[in-house]
Amino acid sequence: MSVVLSRRDVDFLLFDWLRAADLAQRERYEEHSKETFDAVLDLSETIATERFAPINRLLDTQEPVVGEDGKVVLPAELSAALAVYRDSGMPAGVFDAELGGMQLPFVVSQGAFAFFQAASAAASSYPFLSTGNANLLVEHGSPEQVRDYAVPVIEGRWYGTMCLSEPQAGSSLGDITTRAVRQDDGTYRLFGTKMWISGGDHELTENIVHLVLAKVEGAPPGVKGISLFIVPKYLVEDGVIGERNDVALVGLNHKMGWRGTTNTLLNFGEGLATPGGAPGAVGHRVGEEGQGLAQMFHMMNEARISVGMGAVALGYTGYLHALEYARTRTQGRVPGAKDPSAPMVPLTQHADVRRMLLAQKSYVEGGLGLLLYCSRLIDEQLTGGDEAARTRAHDLLEVLTPIAKSWPSQWCLAANDLAIQVHGGYGYTRDYAVEQFYRDNRLNPIHEGTHGIQSLDLLGRKVIAGGGAGLATLVGAIKETTTRAAAVDGPAAAYAAQLDARVDRLVEVTSQLWAGGDPALALANSAVYLEAAGHVVVAWIWLEQLLAVGDRSDAFFDGKRAATRYFFAFELPKVDPQFDLLASLDRTVLDLDPASL
Amino acid sequence: MSVVLSRRDVDFLLFDWLRAADLAQRERYEEHSKETFDAVLDLSETIATERFAPINRLLDTQEPVVGEDGKVVLPAELSAALAVYRDSGMPAGVFDAELGGMQLPFVVSQGAFAFFQAASAAASSYPFLSTGNANLLVEHGSPEQVRDYAVPVIEGRWYGTMCLSEPQAGSSLGDITTRAVRQDDGTYRLFGTKMWISGGDHELTENIVHLVLAKVEGAPPGVKGISLFIVPKYLVEDGVIGERNDVALVGLNHKMGWRGTTNTLLNFGEGLATPGGAPGAVGHRVGEEGQGLAQMFHMMNEARISVGMGAVALGYTGYLHALEYARTRTQGRVPGAKDPSAPMVPLTQHADVRRMLLAQKSYVEGGLGLLLYCSRLIDEQLTGGDEAARTRAHDLLEVLTPIAKSWPSQWCLAANDLAIQVHGGYGYTRDYAVEQFYRDNRLNPIHEGTHGIQSLDLLGRKVIAGGGAGLATLVGAIKETTTRAAAVDGPAAAYAAQLDARVDRLVEVTSQLWAGGDPALALANSAVYLEAAGHVVVAWIWLEQLLAVGDRSDAFFDGKRAATRYFFAFELPKVDPQFDLLASLDRTVLDLDPASL
Repeated sequence: MSVVLSRRDVDFLLFDWLRAADLAQRERYEEHSKETFDAVLDLSETIATERFAPINRLLDTQEPVVGEDGKVVLPAELSAALAVYRDSGMPAGVFDAELGGMQLPFVVSQGAFAFFQAASAAASSYPFLSTGNANLLVEHGSPEQVRDYAVPVIEGRWYGTMCLSEPQAGSSLGDITTRAVRQDDGTYRLFGTKMWISGGDHELTENIVHLVLAKVEGAPPGVKGISLFIVPKYLVEDGVIGERNDVALVGLNHKMGWRGTTNTLLNFGEGLATPGGAPGAVGHRVGEEGQGLAQMFHMMNEARISVGMGAVALGYTGYLHALEYARTRTQGRVPGAKDPSAPMVPLTQHADVRRMLLAQKSYVEGGLGLLLYCSRLIDEQLTGGDEAARTRAHDLLEVLTPIAKSWPSQWCLAANDLAIQVHGGYGYTRDYAVEQFYRDNRLNPIHEGTHGIQSLDLLGRKVIAGGGAGLATLVGAIKETTTRAAAVDGPAAAYAAQLDARVDRLVEVTSQLWAGGDPALALANSAVYLEAAGHVVVAWIWLEQLLAVGDRSDAFFDGKRAATRYFFAFELPKVDPQFDLLASLDRTVLDLDPASL
Repeated sequence: MSVVLSRRDVDFLLFDWLRAADLAQRERYEEHSKETFDAVLDLSETIATERFAPINRLLDTQEPVVGEDGKVVLPAELSAALAVYRDSGMPAGVFDAELGGMQLPFVVSQGAFAFFQAASAAASSYPFLSTGNANLLVEHGSPEQVRDYAVPVIEGRWYGTMCLSEPQAGSSLGDITTRAVRQDDGTYRLFGTKMWISGGDHELTENIVHLVLAKVEGAPPGVKGISLFIVPKYLVEDGVIGERNDVALVGLNHKMGWRGTTNTLLNFGEGLATPGGAPGAVGHRVGEEGQGLAQMFHMMNEARISVGMGAVALGYTGYLHALEYARTRTQGRVPGAKDPSAPMVPLTQHADVRRMLLAQKSYVEGGLGLLLYCSRLIDEQLTGGDEAARTRAHDLLEVLTPIAKSWPSQWCLAANDLAIQVHGGYGYTRDYAVEQFYRDNRLNPIHEGTHGIQSLDLLGRKVIAGGGAGLATLVGAIKETTTRAAAVDGPAAAYAAQLDARVDRLVEVTSQLWAGGDPALALANSAVYLEAAGHVVVAWIWLEQLLAVGDRSDAFFDGKRAATRYFFAFELPKVDPQFDLLASLDRTVLDLDPASL
């Protein structure tokens, strides 16, 4: 059975570096201890390895289909694995004890859930989406809504979805056209079509809670007119499931990867069902009218961090697969070897294979560090000792979130590409797992805000918000690290100097971009900015890991040293031409006439 | 019907830039003219667009299977398309007229064949492999072997394969173990297993000519012991097909992409057939014993250039698909737009989408230029006016080949990645073509010599061969271009200066790497060297294209200007940190203990 994720690395990052065990001293987590955190990680690792990983290929080959009765057919093995997950109590992870939750720190929960994401992106999506759904309701729903719709999800009995996109409106949510019509009883009836709805229909649970963005009639155009609604697949009365709501499965999307997760086109209010004797999907408004997008964005940081973690998990498990292959597969001889009849050497003896493995290691362990760091910030934002600590965590999180979502989506996908390459021809076949990881991970740069969207968020909003408070906080945090590193013997001081130079450049370039006050010019090369900022941040995360290693030495710690060395030698310098380009306020893309493409 | 490849670009590169029509003045091509070249391109474009492109998705979904009778079942539509190709006479393209060939220049043939590669990588592989097979036989076979085995392939009646790899020996061909046993009648009997054999079995043609590397008993170990054999699927006597040879299909490989091409594991001499009453696959030796790898490598430049062209073609058609989508799909509004009820704008109005399209354009048109340039060198090597011209072409080709194979495999795959991204969620579905291009193109960095192999070939052999003659010739050619460009008004002179600086750096770094005479140290980061050299070369190709545009202006020519500008602003500067790393003789990868991975 393959290792899905390195437990030692998760433990090192969580407990050695981020001191997650200390969180048990805080009031919210006082029922916990290092032992309960370990138990959660043990359980997750076991279930993920024994129940999720073994069915991951099956979920790829036995794609969801719509049966003759119109119901979605999924492999029985998926239901079985998800039942084990449900029975473990893990769906209740981060939720409040009073809702039946385990009240775990977010960082521990994310570290544990990464095992499931690594074992099977497709299987883990059902609980993943449901957690986000319940989270949103707990934050913004009425007590009755929480009781009726969030608690069954927290208990793992129902699943939930997020219905944002429409066929004509993906990134541009202001242009959704799904209508919500007020009824005399305070409910709404929804009419419209939602696209890309993962987990949008299935028989895995007895009900599905759709959270749907729609516009109430008469609402203002654009994002200000968007409201949020609970639209259950089956109506619920006093906790009892009633008649079918008017939500119809129109079709399943057939994707390149991530095939085991149903992804659907749903029609609301098509009239296929007539709840209460009339067509229209019955919906319950969450909070006030017009607050839909704000409510959704309130949870966006957590959702994007979880997507980033999914990208890391796929990259990480691909790396471990490639490493195992490279250690056992023999091929050729090292340069300069003269005896052609000598035995072939393991792939790891070839420098370029080591390069490919070390690159993967630097991406996936750097990414895991980044995502756990951000997860720790979410806990700090919630439970930090004073207002200043919570504000600092909030500000850092704001600026780090687009990076935490995008960087792993790019570089851990690159890791999956290298994992295939290490396998040679075998890696290109479906007999090995790595090609599926590559296909699965290709989704991550698209959903939950594309790279382009993230880059506009970072450069157009986050680094300039509050007069640049977010960026200043980030720079302060990095400088705190480089100051510590500068005092350490060995290469850490040199890395600190290299990082300081790039952080200064990041600040300088940000000013240069915005100096003219022209958003179109400032944002023209925002994707390049996002990439450069991402590499600076991950270099920082590596320096942090190196400091956490200290002077300890064994294969694990030496590996951390090697990956840090790699990242500073091979990766960080890539930002220099990117900053040069940005600083030149290059107009190539801005001025381009689309007709000449 | 979608455009598979830009005919205007092919025409521009072939005739405007490379002056391919002038080749008709040479003796070998004297039966030809610009008109016959045009006719070949017209025919190829038509057949590729009308017969190959429409079945490309079908070939992906209806993968080859082995029927109950043990025969490979392929879609009838594939046979039909290939029959049209055969009847067009195109299989005879570059071959001598005396063999029934059209005696076309290689550069015209490659330009024409690119349409097929763009329309369907899988369908075009059958004739592609067969051409390489017949080429090798024409070069090294006896007149009888050419008559019996090459001519039927040139006529398109049979297909051919290249049987090099074995399950335990992929990149390391010296370690193959297939045995060839001499028979009294001068033939051999072969025993062994060959892996990754594309077109290894099917019913598309009445016979299949396998060209097989094997070791004659008693041969020296390593590559020196390798001989080349013709092993037909059915024995041939006086041009008549006879009994079944002892070549057995063991299994089909199931790949991530490129699914329409059968890829097989073949057993030779398993005893399933007993030709002449005895087990063992009957083989006919080509040339002398021990010359197998040299013979194979003699054709390697052409084969690798064709693989590079395949990568370009997939990237190019993906770009055209993305461009068409981006011009018609509307989404959101440009930064600063205030009216949320204004109509949505086409994707091309978004700067980041333009960046993604322009990047693709720079990769695929740069790649196409590079591959056609190399193809033109093959003609020059064969028909150049004097010995010096032929030697220069040969030297240039030697050093450019690993780049021509690898650079498009990396960057035109990156183009396919961007084509998906431009499509957003739709690009991730199998309803759109771009995800298949991405999966198909992922093979190209692996087969016909991996990136790692190409990088060792470039840095370990090509740039140091003949005391650096190849590199010197390349530098001379680039400097000739930059000298011309420096005299031109406008940005060309600035580009020339930027390129000159990088070319000088390439030469300097090459010396620095080899200064110590330690191959392990020199080659430790060879993949980085390959990437840097590739970007320098493609920048040169772009400067060449810009010079060919001159002062003409329309959407096409302005697009060439924009892509050149993009490549020099966004891409070429990436080589600077790569050269810095190489110049530092970085030992991170060399010193890495595999245990710490």
